[in-house]
Amino acid sequence: MTLQRYKLLIEYDGTPFCGWQRQDEDPSVQQTLEEAITAYCGQKVRVFGAGRTDSGVHATGQVAHIDLSGSHNAETLRNALNAHMRPLPVSVIQAEEVTADFDARFSARHRHYCYRILNRRAPPALDKNKVWWIKRELDHHAMQKAATVFIGQHDFTTFRAVQCQAKSPVRHLTRFELVAGGDRLEWHVSARSFLHHQVRSMVGTLKKVGEGFWTADDVRNALEARDRRACGPVAPPDGLYLTRVDYSEDDERAG
Amino acid sequence: MTLQRYKLLIEYDGTPFCGWQRQDEDPSVQQTLEEAITAYCGQKVRVFGAGRTDSGVHATGQVAHIDLSGSHNAETLRNALNAHMRPLPVSVIQAEEVTADFDARFSARHRHYCYRILNRRAPPALDKNKVWWIKRELDHHAMQKAATVFIGQHDFTTFRAVQCQAKSPVRHLTRFELVAGGDRLEWHVSARSFLHHQVRSMVGTLKKVGEGFWTADDVRNALEARDRRACGPVAPPDGLYLTRVDYSEDDERAG
Repeated sequence: MTLQRYKLLIEYDGTPFCGWQRQDEDPSVQQTLEEAITAYCGQKVRVFGAGRTDSGVHATGQVAHIDLSGSHNAETLRNALNAHMRPLPVSVIQAEEVTADFDARFSARHRHYCYRILNRRAPPALDKNKVWWIKRELDHHAMQKAATVFIGQHDFTTFRAVQCQAKSPVRHLTRFELVAGGDRLEWHVSARSFLHHQVRSMVGTLKKVGEGFWTADDVRNALEARDRRACGPVAPPDGLYLTRVDYSEDDERAG
Repeated sequence: MTLQRYKLLIEYDGTPFCGWQRQDEDPSVQQTLEEAITAYCGQKVRVFGAGRTDSGVHATGQVAHIDLSGSHNAETLRNALNAHMRPLPVSVIQAEEVTADFDARFSARHRHYCYRILNRRAPPALDKNKVWWIKRELDHHAMQKAATVFIGQHDFTTFRAVQCQAKSPVRHLTRFELVAGGDRLEWHVSARSFLHHQVRSMVGTLKKVGEGFWTADDVRNALEARDRRACGPVAPPDGLYLTRVDYSEDDERAG
């Protein structure tokens, strides 16, 4: 029996889920997709994702791969999965056939996250659970300056969760940029891969800078301490979005 | 007893409400605000809004006025109303003292709406109830060309709800512009005032153009027919946002 591998581009609202990964009790994005596949074609398959987002974290560009036996039109597959997942907030934006050497997680060359902040006194009415609401006015310039401390290759021990299972705490950040418009701020952060809670740990620490409690030097000292206890508060999951995963052309050639 | 008038700038998610206006049975935005005011200071007052948005229609810049006896710090008022409305999705962004001749509805010089469309095969996961999901690919150029038919002063009988209570069907549109980015489209529409269901009737008609069923000439003929039956389908409320209301400087001077 031959298997065909499919690459899925996925959007989801992380609010009602325990995260990407299957857990025993709570509904996960992975389980939602796996159950939709079974409902569509009867096959029990595992869905492999590029990034294991935490509970409450969203995605506009998560990528996953699955192997199915038999021949399935990619558009039909996408539409069927979306129909079976209704009304849960998970949507397959695109499905395409790929070769068996494409791996959503291990072939990923670059991951992009966006962290959204609403910076005003009034709570969000339209973006509840979709932004980090910060009441105190933030100093954009100071935050952007401090963020440059993170760019490049560093030991991010300070900014990884205690339960992080990565072998090495060294990561290489290629982008850490603040885009502001009115009372809305977006952090754009890119790297080949991230440690567990890394983006939220860095964004939470930069909030201390924006509020005037920490300087860029304090952030540098925290990074150099290589000590989890030197980290600022961890930002809530609400504002975090996995927006894109890049692969080399070779990994994406049609099967 | 002297009364002080306050101008409120309000954001809301229209999904759980029967609309702006109080109704007997269902919760409205107006009622939510009025009950929060009573909870804050014990006064039973009426909240007058600039635009009576329909059920499911959102606002990022609705304006209202209220009269309160006694002296209230505007920031305290805003924060107290927001605290009392929690967890309902209504948020007072700003409160300020104004003179008694300021009227949120009758002093309004210009109203601005945005209508958001998600144009792709996959359903929205993150913007459910917040966009109009249109699967068929839309022709942006044809839609923008047809939209110019509406700009200027016209008799909009074709594009008003049967139950519209305005005395005149004549309105003057100053802007009807399409802003597109990827699979997201936004119509920006401005006028001193609008007829009931006018924006949704026009946007629904322009969808027929985007799908290739109607031409700009068909839209012109529908407008000139001055007949409600010539209108295309009315767009759903989900994508509509009241984004801004303009007043002249004189109407906003501090009290």
